[in-house]
Amino acid sequence: MKKQISLLALLCSASAYAEQAPKNIIYMIGDGMGPAYTTAYRYFKDDPSTKEIESTVFDTILKGMAHTYPDDHTYVTDSAAGATALSSGHKSYNGAIAVDTDKKPVKTMLEIAKQKGMITALVATSQINHATPASFAAHNESRRNYDDIANDYIDNKIAGKLPVDLMLGGGTKYYIREDRNLVAEFKQAGYQYSDDFSALKDIQQIPALGLFAPVGLDFALDNNPTRLAQMTNKALELLDKNKKNGFFVMIEGSQIDWCGHANDIACAMAEMDDFAKSIEQAKAYVDKNPDTLLVITADHSTGGLTLGSHGQYKWATEVVKGVQATAVKLTKLMSESDDLKAIWTANTNIEYTPENQLKLEQAKKLGEKPLNLAIKDIISRASFTGWTTGGHTAIDVQVFAHGKGAEKFIGSQNNTDIADKLIGFIEQ
Amino acid sequence: MKKQISLLALLCSASAYAEQAPKNIIYMIGDGMGPAYTTAYRYFKDDPSTKEIESTVFDTILKGMAHTYPDDHTYVTDSAAGATALSSGHKSYNGAIAVDTDKKPVKTMLEIAKQKGMITALVATSQINHATPASFAAHNESRRNYDDIANDYIDNKIAGKLPVDLMLGGGTKYYIREDRNLVAEFKQAGYQYSDDFSALKDIQQIPALGLFAPVGLDFALDNNPTRLAQMTNKALELLDKNKKNGFFVMIEGSQIDWCGHANDIACAMAEMDDFAKSIEQAKAYVDKNPDTLLVITADHSTGGLTLGSHGQYKWATEVVKGVQATAVKLTKLMSESDDLKAIWTANTNIEYTPENQLKLEQAKKLGEKPLNLAIKDIISRASFTGWTTGGHTAIDVQVFAHGKGAEKFIGSQNNTDIADKLIGFIEQ
Repeated sequence: MKKQISLLALLCSASAYAEQAPKNIIYMIGDGMGPAYTTAYRYFKDDPSTKEIESTVFDTILKGMAHTYPDDHTYVTDSAAGATALSSGHKSYNGAIAVDTDKKPVKTMLEIAKQKGMITALVATSQINHATPASFAAHNESRRNYDDIANDYIDNKIAGKLPVDLMLGGGTKYYIREDRNLVAEFKQAGYQYSDDFSALKDIQQIPALGLFAPVGLDFALDNNPTRLAQMTNKALELLDKNKKNGFFVMIEGSQIDWCGHANDIACAMAEMDDFAKSIEQAKAYVDKNPDTLLVITADHSTGGLTLGSHGQYKWATEVVKGVQATAVKLTKLMSESDDLKAIWTANTNIEYTPENQLKLEQAKKLGEKPLNLAIKDIISRASFTGWTTGGHTAIDVQVFAHGKGAEKFIGSQNNTDIADKLIGFIEQ
Repeated sequence: MKKQISLLALLCSASAYAEQAPKNIIYMIGDGMGPAYTTAYRYFKDDPSTKEIESTVFDTILKGMAHTYPDDHTYVTDSAAGATALSSGHKSYNGAIAVDTDKKPVKTMLEIAKQKGMITALVATSQINHATPASFAAHNESRRNYDDIANDYIDNKIAGKLPVDLMLGGGTKYYIREDRNLVAEFKQAGYQYSDDFSALKDIQQIPALGLFAPVGLDFALDNNPTRLAQMTNKALELLDKNKKNGFFVMIEGSQIDWCGHANDIACAMAEMDDFAKSIEQAKAYVDKNPDTLLVITADHSTGGLTLGSHGQYKWATEVVKGVQATAVKLTKLMSESDDLKAIWTANTNIEYTPENQLKLEQAKKLGEKPLNLAIKDIISRASFTGWTTGGHTAIDVQVFAHGKGAEKFIGSQNNTDIADKLIGFIEQ
């Protein structure tokens, strides 16, 4: 009987783990997306006319959480050290782009995928040479060396080839420079190039480079609410056509973090919505292609966001939903107009009380920064949204996974463990 | 071949799910313990002399997260609605003690366990008739009706018996009253009674009632740092001896929430430490008794705690570790003394700068509340601890599980789902 049980256990174990490595990997990073953001997004999307609170795509694939601390005892990481841990499995110092604490390059999963003959891609709403995508395909002692990082994308040869086959994001400012024209060099290397987002559909080949803004793309709330989802769709379409040896893509919801730094809740929710729509596409791709693994996490939490402030037991989603522009845009509009009330009432559903009027008018006299802060303060107070910092926090982030190998991500883990598991799959 | 695979799948599935229901259930609730608290606790316990950041007991058994919203669209629950969801599987209004939105009683898992002949227990560091334990064994339209709730513990008969066989916590104020002496009634019903914590070891039978403070027990930081762990140890010892038909116990780290409301980080970390030590005992019990299931969660997050504030990328654990008393106690000491410096330097490792001196002296002149706030403000600023509210927030909480049936708690779930799963086990 014991022998039978052992044999059964062996068969069960073999059937469960056989061929566990996925062929394709979709790795999505919500920059700054701590657990407060995914919770906020659920309630932001809630339909108040139904009793039920609807689930989000995040709720359907939660697997665990990750520790984000960098390689020191400050406990609070930046996006560079966070992405280096997530791309290479190495903890490093804040500012490090795929280098260790001795500033020596560490191999990234994208580079390993390239060596294995997989098609590779980076998609971001930031400039494509920003900290998170950079930590997958470049090596630099400082995230601030944007030009060097962009250079590295074309100079860093893996097995004689450029490491990234498809890049979609922003950053023409860093690619077309007086000292070097990287766009021309990429074209020379056979890349299709586009700087026109409206012509995204016309990118029909890999390799390709799409740079749709001088630096980062416009905020989702101010311009195109689905630009990441559209780039995700395009990337998956191209990768699917070229996946003979499998593909690896990193897709970043870059500006969740930027809205978090700004303590701008409406801005953050619009970025979350674009990221969630991108995830829904990736999840649908996995459902059609079960040899694919989707893993989603964040590099850290930003802003110290919480839902509830000043002792009130509520979070007023209708206020957040009512805000139609980022504080950056509202500041610009108000700075250029004498009719603050018209701008306020056209872009929020918060009453233009004498108190709010006085606050905005006085702040405007002091300059753009005080005006920007006053706008956000009114929105945060009206919606009972709390913030503790313009920087990052140390709170653990969530790990979501779906598809082949997803069960490996259950439980509490280090951010480096996520990289180690994915590298393990790529190396198989 | 297909038939063989189907048979194998069936056998695997049968071997995995056979007899899945645990005999005993240990249900632990960290009141107010959002993800910021478990993250903070890891770094608070980190030994800075080692490169590694040590894992906590929470890290070893994380399974998922839970949505805490009450039965309205405020999204932010109180402890009563939270505990009602966790005890009965019913969302209700803030303030509800195991009643639905029509104020009708809902059956709790403790009552169902009692009906099934299981031994039942409640352990808390609050008064034992406080919202969380109350929602397991009493029914009331308001958590504020403390006397009625205490009455319900003896008046609420389940299958002709009192619902709770063992209660350890505080609350003599509510049990020995002018209108009714519940302690005498419990003794009459055969309960061993103690109000002396130092004689905890002398409780040797079930049924028993231990009430070790007029209201809640003293804060862990100010008096006994392991009072919950000691009560947990005693409860498991007594339950183990009486588990013929299995047992159900709810153990609450009640005062994590109280320190969170106070925005007192050192207070909160001491409560987390006592709760973690209690969990370690429960986990060890499960390891020795694999027919037992341990589930741990929180009812909500409190205080809007974050680790990182004012744009600084660090959380200063050494400052938190250096604080030797709660702000409540420090306020009392400073109010009664002329030598603020002596009290400050004896109880913190934060420098007594002229700025801090001025702040404390000026606050003391204004009264105890301003002094209390000034003390906490200095500690929060020095440690880069952020808070957004004196109330609760809507952030999802974690779900931890270990032992028989633990895998049922993987992923994202509603707080009511946790109750439904546990009730499902109890009813099997």
